[in-house]
Amino acid sequence: MTPSQKTPRVPRPIQYSEYLQLDQLLATQTLESARYGKPAHDELLFIITHQAYELWFKQIVFELESVVDIFDNSTVEDREMGQIIGWLTRITKIQTILLQQIDVIETMTPLDFLDFRDLLVPASGFQSIQFKQIEIMLGIRREQRTPADRDFFHSRLSEAEQSQLLALEARPSLLDLTDAWLQRMPFLNFGQFEFWREYETAVELMLESDRNIIALNPALSEEHRAWQLAAIETAKQRFASALEEERYNELRQAGEFRLTHQGFLAALFINLYRDEPMMYLPYRYLTLLLEIDQNFTNWRSRHALMVQRMLGRKIGTGGSSGHEYLSQTTEKNRVFLDLFALSTFLLPRSALPSLPVELSRALGFHFAGNSRATE
Amino acid sequence: MTPSQKTPRVPRPIQYSEYLQLDQLLATQTLESARYGKPAHDELLFIITHQAYELWFKQIVFELESVVDIFDNSTVEDREMGQIIGWLTRITKIQTILLQQIDVIETMTPLDFLDFRDLLVPASGFQSIQFKQIEIMLGIRREQRTPADRDFFHSRLSEAEQSQLLALEARPSLLDLTDAWLQRMPFLNFGQFEFWREYETAVELMLESDRNIIALNPALSEEHRAWQLAAIETAKQRFASALEEERYNELRQAGEFRLTHQGFLAALFINLYRDEPMMYLPYRYLTLLLEIDQNFTNWRSRHALMVQRMLGRKIGTGGSSGHEYLSQTTEKNRVFLDLFALSTFLLPRSALPSLPVELSRALGFHFAGNSRATE
Amino acid sequence: MTPSQKTPRVPRPIQYSEYLQLDQLLATQTLESARYGKPAHDELLFIITHQAYELWFKQIVFELESVVDIFDNSTVEDREMGQIIGWLTRITKIQTILLQQIDVIETMTPLDFLDFRDLLVPASGFQSIQFKQIEIMLGIRREQRTPADRDFFHSRLSEAEQSQLLALEARPSLLDLTDAWLQRMPFLNFGQFEFWREYETAVELMLESDRNIIALNPALSEEHRAWQLAAIETAKQRFASALEEERYNELRQAGEFRLTHQGFLAALFINLYRDEPMMYLPYRYLTLLLEIDQNFTNWRSRHALMVQRMLGRKIGTGGSSGHEYLSQTTEKNRVFLDLFALSTFLLPRSALPSLPVELSRALGFHFAGNSRATE
Amino acid sequence: MTPSQKTPRVPRPIQYSEYLQLDQLLATQTLESARYGKPAHDELLFIITHQAYELWFKQIVFELESVVDIFDNSTVEDREMGQIIGWLTRITKIQTILLQQIDVIETMTPLDFLDFRDLLVPASGFQSIQFKQIEIMLGIRREQRTPADRDFFHSRLSEAEQSQLLALEARPSLLDLTDAWLQRMPFLNFGQFEFWREYETAVELMLESDRNIIALNPALSEEHRAWQLAAIETAKQRFASALEEERYNELRQAGEFRLTHQGFLAALFINLYRDEPMMYLPYRYLTLLLEIDQNFTNWRSRHALMVQRMLGRKIGTGGSSGHEYLSQTTEKNRVFLDLFALSTFLLPRSALPSLPVELSRALGFHFAGNSRATE
Repeated sequence: MTPSQKTPRVPRPIQYSEYLQLDQLLATQTLESARYGKPAHDELLFIITHQAYELWFKQIVFELESVVDIFDNSTVEDREMGQIIGWLTRITKIQTILLQQIDVIETMTPLDFLDFRDLLVPASGFQSIQFKQIEIMLGIRREQRTPADRDFFHSRLSEAEQSQLLALEARPSLLDLTDAWLQRMPFLNFGQFEFWREYETAVELMLESDRNIIALNPALSEEHRAWQLAAIETAKQRFASALEEERYNELRQAGEFRLTHQGFLAALFINLYRDEPMMYLPYRYLTLLLEIDQNFTNWRSRHALMVQRMLGRKIGTGGSSGHEYLSQTTEKNRVFLDLFALSTFLLPRSALPSLPVELSRALGFHFAGNSRATE
Repeated sequence: MTPSQKTPRVPRPIQYSEYLQLDQLLATQTLESARYGKPAHDELLFIITHQAYELWFKQIVFELESVVDIFDNSTVEDREMGQIIGWLTRITKIQTILLQQIDVIETMTPLDFLDFRDLLVPASGFQSIQFKQIEIMLGIRREQRTPADRDFFHSRLSEAEQSQLLALEARPSLLDLTDAWLQRMPFLNFGQFEFWREYETAVELMLESDRNIIALNPALSEEHRAWQLAAIETAKQRFASALEEERYNELRQAGEFRLTHQGFLAALFINLYRDEPMMYLPYRYLTLLLEIDQNFTNWRSRHALMVQRMLGRKIGTGGSSGHEYLSQTTEKNRVFLDLFALSTFLLPRSALPSLPVELSRALGFHFAGNSRATE
Repeated sequence: MTPSQKTPRVPRPIQYSEYLQLDQLLATQTLESARYGKPAHDELLFIITHQAYELWFKQIVFELESVVDIFDNSTVEDREMGQIIGWLTRITKIQTILLQQIDVIETMTPLDFLDFRDLLVPASGFQSIQFKQIEIMLGIRREQRTPADRDFFHSRLSEAEQSQLLALEARPSLLDLTDAWLQRMPFLNFGQFEFWREYETAVELMLESDRNIIALNPALSEEHRAWQLAAIETAKQRFASALEEERYNELRQAGEFRLTHQGFLAALFINLYRDEPMMYLPYRYLTLLLEIDQNFTNWRSRHALMVQRMLGRKIGTGGSSGHEYLSQTTEKNRVFLDLFALSTFLLPRSALPSLPVELSRALGFHFAGNSRATE
Repeated sequence: MTPSQKTPRVPRPIQYSEYLQLDQLLATQTLESARYGKPAHDELLFIITHQAYELWFKQIVFELESVVDIFDNSTVEDREMGQIIGWLTRITKIQTILLQQIDVIETMTPLDFLDFRDLLVPASGFQSIQFKQIEIMLGIRREQRTPADRDFFHSRLSEAEQSQLLALEARPSLLDLTDAWLQRMPFLNFGQFEFWREYETAVELMLESDRNIIALNPALSEEHRAWQLAAIETAKQRFASALEEERYNELRQAGEFRLTHQGFLAALFINLYRDEPMMYLPYRYLTLLLEIDQNFTNWRSRHALMVQRMLGRKIGTGGSSGHEYLSQTTEKNRVFLDLFALSTFLLPRSALPSLPVELSRALGFHFAGNSRATE
């Protein structure tokens, strides 16, 4: 009998502590302060909190890799989209933990930290390779980083780590892959329907109506009226720059957008028609990217406050002024700003161009057999 | 020129405090302790926390009403399903606030509470009409309530309140409407595909394989082996009772299930094939119902602990022993237990009967025009 | 020159990943499903979440040990009380993480879990030695555990683990040590002041006043009046049982109290006079014990709901019905119920016996030198 | 018989909905969109969330007023300090709610908001008088506000509101009162003990030791060594500027500090010797001020992200670009930065000057009667 004939294969019995490799896991907390003969009470907390961060980072890296793997194929099945949304939702829940862990580390007071911080030189949280991996996989590019952050790559990482990150930077990021996926969206030139021309008309109608409202409003001072009319002109320019490929590309060159024009328009379409059943999953997907970005921004800002509280203006163990460094990355290291900007270009539902019937039907679900509509 | 010709209609200018009716809102906090000449510092917190609860209850009632209104029609459009999911998600976020507010109320110590609690007799949080409305709209029935809870309806509510709640109880609840919607699901008898016969076979195969694994496992003591084999027999009975309408209905009569047999099977199908795109929204919907139930259960249990901490074994201002009352409702006032029970009947994906191609295609999305699959 | 003369001792430089032993830490996640050739996506989450739990349990064990070490000495300095409060506060913040991690694990659906759960037999979370340590250190006794829970000690732990826990059970728990510390409180028989006689009088006055209020209240139905008067008699019995040592000890024998009578009275005194500066730290300490108990209760109840959602009525991998097991321990495994019961015996501040001036002064802070009062 | 002879005074019976004035409370939600005939589903959420904010603001204003009232007296009793700490802790718990409510409002999507936002012109959340009150009571001064923020005071508030806020600005803020209280601290010139001279020596010793460590460290590159030595010189300057009154006052004039020199030193002393029992309450107090500041900073930053997500680069209903406005106030409107800066000046416990025995004893608790030390 060959092994493959053995049916069923009996799983070996496994116990809890063996499964979780607790012997090894719980042996990885070695206090530096104990090494120097003066164990500091709070060093264990410091280690464990950072280890918990690294465990969660491993999970996030894994989920992002799984998402990237699917997007790397030319087609993303809707079935896979459901999975992707599940994994990204998981990342947002983990981010809640990352945030909450700051509350735990803050039970260590600045004075308690002084009991061992001098022993940790030059270790620094900015050396977390996994966190850099997450940033790169999302789409943070070397050139957008602050000088201090870029410096870290050269001076503080081992050569092996550097090449690992360089290789990762050479691969398409989630932003790149999302852009490619958006460009593949088939909705934008459906049949004879020229959506963007209709959208332009709707925008012009809306702005004209706004101008009238302002002109007629007796409650406005002249100054306020002038100010509001100017705001409408600004809005008009914005809409124009979103719709005209050339102007959009100029702004993109200048760094104001990262998505391609085609990708940007598809994202806008998804946001405008998110009520259509077929837009449900794409809309959820884009919203989750935005939320992940928002959560990391929030975490960086919270982290910067914590470091300020812990060190004041002291230099961190890694040789940088932690608070400043972190404050700067808070705004710098954002990836999906284009998705935040989309709100600029939304129209009220009542002003939206209505879709041609056939497109509208195409965007709905069809149940070929026993139709639900006839139930 | 008639008024209707005025185009566009100019919205009246409105200021923040006027819009929110702050003058009235912020005038609704009157301390009983002040009325008796000894203002108690913590009474304001007590009032404001309860008012915040009532504001959020109003929002939850409104969202539930909106959901019920849609389900009350014979057909639920997928487009509407997206909305419903958004509203139910909102309820879960509000429930997070409800839970967190217990942390705020707990900054009042039992001793601080004594400064004014005697003045509140016989007011009681169990008199919250809006909370009873929420319970009834979800599907809590009068007869499942504890005697103390039922009593409250007669003895502590005004006649107008009683009739309002009676009328609400006469309407179909979200549980009823969900059951009806599940029964309308068209998937279960698709063409020649007799799903449940295949499912039964898959279950039998799985249990048989389990029996073999147990029989062959050298690591098991005889006692443990016998125990595990017995567990498999129990599982077998459970599957049988889910599949055979008659046995299911007996159990339902006995109160173990609330969904109809057809509704239960549809919910099970949705859980088994949730990876199919067309199942995405229904699966999200059922999951949200389960989470709302779970969150209220969690809140009741947390609430019971808080009352125990505040009053010990004292009688509450409403004349009931709050802790006991709340502890009992924690398990009693659950609605969607059937959805928790579904997990009992899941099979691993690898053991699932595969769907006929045409059904599988029907469950996928179709884009009639520029097919994504061909991109 | 001998090494010990080298001053200052130069700490070795240390890098982030070396300090946190990331190579080992991040190598402890081995998927059972991969071992059988079918890696299940969600198994990594399952492992990492449980590992994060174990890391935090290690921290909690460490903090509890530090607290116990201090209490094991006959005297606890106020300076140490400040530290203890810091550590217990830390435990409550960690408990927030423990709770939140349930939200993360719930991003795994019951169906995803089925992809690998059969491979984990007979591992079970109830085998967590560290969690049992925490329970024992707090004061959960073998005999109060549910039969299933007790069984686990014999059947599922290794002999080494069993002896380790037995040894721990033989040591005084935090409850025991707190009781001893309370008994040492010097305030209860200060000079000629017989506090408890005065307290008894105050209770009698308060109850008498309550009886009058009830008798005079024209809004009460006769039935309600009778009911309220009966409630006062019950309250009177309760106060009596707290004050009379013999009756208290009978109730304690019957399991209704765990603190000694002397310890209980001291805890009550601290709660009654918590506004006195010297009571500030003791009151904070008792409140934190209560909150830790409350948080674990809350976590067990939340955990039970999660298991019900994941498994329905299926048997857990460890061979027990997880939901039932957990539901039972929710109420069973509580330690500081006496502190919750204290609220039963509080009096409004206005009814509190006033303290003799010298005792009151003794309970205040004294600054011997440049007195603040004279500022 | 006169009314005052009636003993006991019977409290009138009161019911839940009457106590909370639910009829009025729940009548304050009027949808503007309904007024124009097109009720927008999400407007109720918008109103209720903002009303919940205002309820909580009222509570925060009340707690701050209570704190200020106590501090306004020349002496703060330790007994009162305990109360103050309770109230400030409450504020931090409420701030958790404020933060969480952003998650609720974000269940409204940008498109949903467009259904009614045009009707709310020119209402703006920046018109919240209660929030301005909170800012002023904490210590935000008109001149530190951004130009846009200052503008709001003139252009968007009624005259009555403006005078109300002006009057509040004329009163001492919590920062002012805390400074005065710190200056009254009696510890700094205790007897012959000249603390700050000893502190200076300790700082010099510590920096000298640091210099040696750097000089001897073989692992440092020359560049890194130079960089670290320069960092020590910077640290030295910082310590000097904190200790020398004249230099400190220059920096204060330049806006780098807000506390007086004497107040700053007292706060530093409290942080350095927070382990002394008598420092426990003052240390908790200062930490809470810092946390309240941190929480509002965090909330502003989170709020700015939410507005960016909702409006993109659109102009807010109040006529300002919400995101930019909020981003700027995030760093601008901070009050207790000096407390964050304190960490710069901490020394490790091992380097702290030891206190003279009599001072140390004075900082401990004394129990005049039955001393605990002798137990």
